[in-house]
This record gives sequence, structure tokens and C-alpha cells, in this order.
Amino acid sequence: MADRLDITYVLTCHSGESPEDKALGIALEQTVELPLATISSDIRARMVGRIEELAPLDGPRYQARISYPLAAIGSEPTQCLNLLFGNISLKQGMRIVAIDWPEPLLRAFGGPAFGIAGLRALVGQPDGPLLCSALKPMGMTAAELAARCEQFALGGVHIIKDDHGVADQPDAPFAERLARCQEAIARANARTGRQSLYFPNVTAGYRELPQRLAAAKAAGCKGVLINAWITGLDALRYARDEFGLAVMAHPALTGAYFAPDHGIAPELLLGDLFRLAGADASIYPNTGGRFGFSVETCEAINHHLRRPLAGIEPSLPTPGGGMDIQRAPEWVRRYGPDTIVLIGGSLYAQGDLAAASKALREALEAA
Amino acid sequence: MADRLDITYVLTCHSGESPEDKALGIALEQTVELPLATISSDIRARMVGRIEELAPLDGPRYQARISYPLAAIGSEPTQCLNLLFGNISLKQGMRIVAIDWPEPLLRAFGGPAFGIAGLRALVGQPDGPLLCSALKPMGMTAAELAARCEQFALGGVHIIKDDHGVADQPDAPFAERLARCQEAIARANARTGRQSLYFPNVTAGYRELPQRLAAAKAAGCKGVLINAWITGLDALRYARDEFGLAVMAHPALTGAYFAPDHGIAPELLLGDLFRLAGADASIYPNTGGRFGFSVETCEAINHHLRRPLAGIEPSLPTPGGGMDIQRAPEWVRRYGPDTIVLIGGSLYAQGDLAAASKALREALEAA
Repeated sequence: MADRLDITYVLTCHSGESPEDKALGIALEQTVELPLATISSDIRARMVGRIEELAPLDGPRYQARISYPLAAIGSEPTQCLNLLFGNISLKQGMRIVAIDWPEPLLRAFGGPAFGIAGLRALVGQPDGPLLCSALKPMGMTAAELAARCEQFALGGVHIIKDDHGVADQPDAPFAERLARCQEAIARANARTGRQSLYFPNVTAGYRELPQRLAAAKAAGCKGVLINAWITGLDALRYARDEFGLAVMAHPALTGAYFAPDHGIAPELLLGDLFRLAGADASIYPNTGGRFGFSVETCEAINHHLRRPLAGIEPSLPTPGGGMDIQRAPEWVRRYGPDTIVLIGGSLYAQGDLAAASKALREALEAA
Repeated sequence: MADRLDITYVLTCHSGESPEDKALGIALEQTVELPLATISSDIRARMVGRIEELAPLDGPRYQARISYPLAAIGSEPTQCLNLLFGNISLKQGMRIVAIDWPEPLLRAFGGPAFGIAGLRALVGQPDGPLLCSALKPMGMTAAELAARCEQFALGGVHIIKDDHGVADQPDAPFAERLARCQEAIARANARTGRQSLYFPNVTAGYRELPQRLAAAKAAGCKGVLINAWITGLDALRYARDEFGLAVMAHPALTGAYFAPDHGIAPELLLGDLFRLAGADASIYPNTGGRFGFSVETCEAINHHLRRPLAGIEPSLPTPGGGMDIQRAPEWVRRYGPDTIVLIGGSLYAQGDLAAASKALREALEAA
């Protein structure tokens, strides 16, 4: 249905709950927020979610598909998020497992400005896997982080981003870090002839985020890192539209939605939503690292970031979170070349960052 | 410890997990994001969270208290949120149950500009319970919603807010709704001699939110409604600092953090964090309505919104979400007079909104 937003939920019915009531409860809660008895038949027909399908799964679980009129959303990602999971986040046993996006919403979100091909052009690497590392730890000075940035760039790391927790702390204030790391990247690129990029972490509030984006743009950065759930998802779109910057999105604070019975499937949140809001690259915790995603979840995220979606550029999956340099080539073979491999700690453990980065990049290219 | 942020977690250890490793994992993950072996002893001492306490609870659960240097945060709410639950949101069995706020962070957040006394002054009601209702459903025109606004104001409802899902949809675009509802409130106040206020829902993205706040201010509104987790929490602070507006915060999208074993206790998220970020009033789902909070949770939220906190104004608890007009006086007696009773559907079910509102207001005052 091209003119409606179609959402599929898995409902887990606790003792005594009827799946019909639970589905109708969602359809009302996410639109009119009133009991049926207090709304007109016109409003009911035009606004309330329509239960398209309700089928039993195993045990106490049911699959419900509910479609919503675009008039319940308008064209803003904020209200779309609210319709998806705003009030029902406060309920239980409701998990969004599929979203069928109508074209008007795809156009309203807009997706990545650069996408896979565009980001590849920025880093001068038309094919093969891409490598990313993170400047850390917090507590180092801007000069120390910039020295690490230079080493990574000398080793040919394509994208060197701030750690997502390196923001504007006194040891390495944003403005100084931005200046020093951009200088460091430029020095290294002049030596290597490559186009490594520094993505500063611009995550900040409503007054400061625009200032940091403007500063990053003015310093010559081509892209930035944003903790999209902390800023609000729309910050991705804002960085894209107002500053023309490429955006790498970090999943901090999103994990609470990934519970088995209640929330939003990771491939929809870190895949569809991040991509549609403008992420050219979406970081997620790779399986086997410090976090608990299964390989199936990782592959589902990859698929949702890259799959054809009318008029929307694909995004680069960026698995990270405790990836090991030894196993990195294996992940590239499994996930395919349109992947950014994000490795921090395992490179730092090598000591010589430039040499370790170069060796890793070559191993990835061989894979 | 006045110069450190002290966070207490309940850890649920799954098979084979050691509570010591789990606590140390948090202390590293939320700061340096590197294994101990790759950081200097200086960085370890200055930046890594310090495990102050680790004690067994029942079964597989442990209580861990970890303190963090303010240098790991700086002064911005965005990085504070990240340190609280950014990456560990993606793990399991970690629930934040207490936060001891150091004064520098309290000052950096700032809290409500108006607080309980200030919001009471705005609505001209120095004591006794306050009444709030919501303009809905979506699908009505701006004129129809404004007519409801006028009826509520004639009945003496103190704050009449947009439903949190009424944003900028085609049936009642923001600009037209703002103009008509403000006119309606002014007409009603001229008749009643009261100071009812209209709080438009300004929830929107980074480009639009400032425009809507400016429009609300220009139209004469004294306050606004913000879905703080959808915009990003900092939107509260922004509305406060840049526009001098009172802020009512809505909890949409926050419920995923309230799982029993993993997340952030509701009294910390809807209490402390919303209050510190600038909410003069914080909406939460009252017990016994459409959502599942216990009365103990509701009272804990009330306490965290109102408790003395060095230099920070208290906020008004705003229980809603399916409250019944019959039981409303009982909640006022239980929760105390410094409460905003938020009632929508149960008033709409009465038909004559002005008469029903007046009767409810009088019943609340008698309680």
C-alpha cells in the first residue's frame, strides 16, 4: 500500500491478554490516543491504524500487521518515530519486526546524501573493504589524539573518527581537537597521496551541534560522527541538509530497544531508520565482540542498509565494538566488500599504529 | 564525592559472568573504551570509572557503585547521557538504579527555569492541584481543536496542551493550530478571568524545532510540550535557555529503558534527567491507566521531581495516560497538591468539555 505505512509487530500476550485487543490498543494508542467510543466514525476511518493481519505464532505470540495513514505522520521523522514506538514503548510485549515504507515517507526522510558510492569517492577507494578506526582514549590531549590520527592516516585507514565518547571534555576540547586532527590528516595525506578523512564527533545539544557542524565544515572535514539517539535522530538529516557533510551514525543508547519481546528490531533501527535519516555509514556492534548481536542480526542490518529502496542511497554497514584484527578478513569475506571495518582496541594493542593499520588494510584487501 | 558522578547499577549476571568483570567492563566501556592493557596508568587513574562498591543481592544479582570523574563528561548533557547508558545499552543485565549528582553537573544541566512555584505563577494558581488536558484526536482541523481548547479553558483547565502525537500533520498544521488555539485561550481567559495556558507541541527536528519555539513565543505562549526522547533530551534546555519558555516533557519512546533487568530506573529518567534538563513538568503514565507503572514507581518519580537538589528548582509530576475523572481526587490526595493531573479521554467521554472540566477541577480542589 503505497499511501500507508505498514508496520508488523510480534505481540507477546501476557496472561489473559487477547491479541485482538492488544492490536487494537496499538492502532489507537499510536494515533488518536482515545477510546473508540469518544471518536467519530470519520476520524476512526481516516486516522486509526487498520489491522491488516493478525496471526498466531508459537506460544503466546502473535504477528500483527497494522497500516497507518500518512496523515497520522505528516512528513517529519520525529512524528514518524513517535508513531512507530512513542507511547507503546511504555507498554509491554510489542516488538516491531518489519516496516513497509511508502514512497512519500522515503522522500521525506531522504536517506544518505553520499551513500556507498559517494563515501567511497570521498575517501578515494572505489571498491574493496574500507577501514575505520577511533581516536581514544578520553583523557589524552588533543595533540596526543592528533598524533594517533596521523599514524592511522599514514597506515591508510580510510576514516579516522573520534571515539563516540570523546566529545568536549577539558583534556581535548572540541575546537582544538578538530584543528589538530585535521592538520594531522592533511600532513599524512600529503605524504601518502591518499584521501584519509577525519570525522570529528559533533554530538552535542541544540545550541552546540550546529556550531560544531559549522566548525567541522569550515575546517575542511568531509564528514562527522553523530550519536544519533542522543542528539535525536533528526541530527543526521540536519548535518546532511544544512552542511552537506557525510554522516557516520553511532548506536549509543539504542540497545534498550533490542529486547527479545519488546522494542524495535536492530535491522530496522540501525538499518532502516539510521539510513533513512541520512547516515552514510551506520556503526553496529559486530557479533563475537563485546556485545551480544548474533551473526544473523548483523547480516540483517547489512541487508537493510544496502537493499534497494526507491530513490534512497545505500549506506555502509560499519561493524565494530571489539573486532579483532586477526578475524577482520573473515568478516569482510562474510559481509562483502561494501563494509567499513571499524577496529580500535585491537589496533592499539599492536603498538605501532601506522604499521599495524597498513598490515590490516592489506589483509582486508586480500580478503 | 562532590567532584565525581556516582552511579549505582544492579547487575544481573548470566551464566558464567563474574560480577567483578561485569563491573569493570562498565567502568571501561563508558570511559576509555579500551582494554586495560592498552592504556597508561595515568589514564587509568584519571579516567576509568572506579568501582566503589560491589555487593551481592538476591540470586544472580549484584549491586555495583561506580564513580566517574567529571573530566569524562565535561559539562554537556549529551555526553552525560552517553556515559550513563550509551554503549552499555547494547549489553545486558545492567540497570541504573541511583545517581548521585555532583554540583558541577547540576549547575551544567540547570534544571527548570520556572519550577513548581514559577509554573503556578504562570497559571495564576498559587496552591492546590493543577489540571491539564490534551487536544486530540489527530485528524481534527485546527479550528476543531481550538474549539476544544476554548471549552477546556472555560472549564478552568490550567494547562491545555496538544496531544503529543499532534505535530504538523495536514489536518491541523502547526502554524494554524498555534494561532487558533492561542486565540481560543485568550477569548476564554477574557471571559473567565483566569490564566489558562496553551502549550503547543513543538516536537520537531533540528531545523524546525527552533522555528516552532520562536513561533510559540511570538504567539504569546508561556510554555510548550516536547517529546524529549524523540527530539533529544537537550531540546528541553534549549527551549528554556533560548526562548524562556516553560517546558512540559512527554515520555514517548522512553519505555524501552524500563525493563526489569536492563535500563534506567523510571524515577531517574523521567524524574532526575527530565528535571535536570529543564522540564518544569514531567508527564508519566500513572498506575492503573493504560500503562504498567506500579504506584511505587509513580511515587518515586514524584519524589525525584520534587526532592531538594542543590540549586535546582523542583518540577511538577504530571501523571496521565488513561486517568479516570472519578479516581482523580484520590490520586491528588495520595500524590499531594504539587501535582498536575493530566486527563484526556475520560473528560472527552463526558461530552460537555467545559462543564466536565469545571466539575473535575472543583473535585480536585476539594480533595
